[in-house]
Amino acid sequence: MSREFSEAERRGVYRAIYERRDVRADFIEKPVPDDVLGRILDAAHHAPSVGFMQPWDFIVIRDERVRAAVHDNFARANREASRIYSGERLALYADLKLEGILRAPVNICVTCDRTRTRGHGLGRQSSPETDLYSTVCAIENLWLAARAESLGVGWVSILEFEELKSLLQIPSHVTVVAYLCAGYVSDFSPRPDLERRGWEGREDLARLVHFDSWDSQDEDRAGKLFVLRND
Amino acid sequence: MSREFSEAERRGVYRAIYERRDVRADFIEKPVPDDVLGRILDAAHHAPSVGFMQPWDFIVIRDERVRAAVHDNFARANREASRIYSGERLALYADLKLEGILRAPVNICVTCDRTRTRGHGLGRQSSPETDLYSTVCAIENLWLAARAESLGVGWVSILEFEELKSLLQIPSHVTVVAYLCAGYVSDFSPRPDLERRGWEGREDLARLVHFDSWDSQDEDRAGKLFVLRND
Repeated sequence: MSREFSEAERRGVYRAIYERRDVRADFIEKPVPDDVLGRILDAAHHAPSVGFMQPWDFIVIRDERVRAAVHDNFARANREASRIYSGERLALYADLKLEGILRAPVNICVTCDRTRTRGHGLGRQSSPETDLYSTVCAIENLWLAARAESLGVGWVSILEFEELKSLLQIPSHVTVVAYLCAGYVSDFSPRPDLERRGWEGREDLARLVHFDSWDSQDEDRAGKLFVLRND
Repeated sequence: MSREFSEAERRGVYRAIYERRDVRADFIEKPVPDDVLGRILDAAHHAPSVGFMQPWDFIVIRDERVRAAVHDNFARANREASRIYSGERLALYADLKLEGILRAPVNICVTCDRTRTRGHGLGRQSSPETDLYSTVCAIENLWLAARAESLGVGWVSILEFEELKSLLQIPSHVTVVAYLCAGYVSDFSPRPDLERRGWEGREDLARLVHFDSWDSQDEDRAGKLFVLRND
């Protein structure tokens, strides 16, 4: 297990990281084979988890009626969410495509059972939220594995979650962490959609790096860390 | 950006996912070069984030006095945490190595500024916690890139976090999401430490997969998804 990565293997990891996109508009109709779905779920299952708790569950949703009901849920939540914007920002918001619930052939609801005793509470006394964080690590694993399989994934965060839980019959003690849309895509855009559409730009990483304490920032020193890649 | 992954590139992604370990005991003294540190931070910075908010900051800690103070913090939190165990489980707990703060040459505190306006609140009205989740995606990116660089990472969740914030001069409105230890390792264990030491075993993924709704579980059907990899 300690063997170094070949140049191509290492490139694969960075490609997945840099070419992963939050896909909403670009799904195509091609079905997702079971073995591919199995591999991305197994990638998720091999995420780190606090105390080896593995607090996640995965609801794989292909049924069109269920997806249509989730889409209605999104539409209501999105109308509500749009109310905080006005003027040009509202026009920009209204123009954004924020979900692929119906176009993506597979939706995956990822949950966290916060009452699971697996892991015997290790690490959760000082950091109770690490069970949720473990579940997010699983989601990021799935997302990167999906990119390596040429599969796009989008995380829909605009939903009415209590209603979603009732729709999917999720028990009250279980938390929905993410609702994902997955499928093959026409294209992986070179830049994030929200950047291309002018919603937000990428921050300069050198401004987000501190040395030994929060107050010690040195953009020149930080910038030198990133000579090899600056985009 | 839509080019398919070569076999080796795809293998690299899965190797990083399956061979990533939460490292505590196996750090060696070899220094971490700046360009490697820069690459794993840049991998983190290319994580998905809600509304393209990029709410993270990274405090890179190499100073031995700072690490010694964090280690003291851990030791106190760990004594406190051990109190919920008794008998054999306590003996097992006492025997676990749960941090590599002093042995790992680089520690990285990853934070989330929940007040950052970047992203204009997109997606956070219905899911306010997605800023924290975005930060966790950054951590998992860093962790996987580190594996590709033959660098081990361990997530220390047993700390007194308010005290840690004061030690690192982190402003009160900023949340500490993770305290990581990073460095070269003598070995990446084939199995997670907590599994090897008998603390907890890996769950059968087929038991965690549901179809179309929570109540629809079918282990045979789920098992068929995982024919290609079952470990």
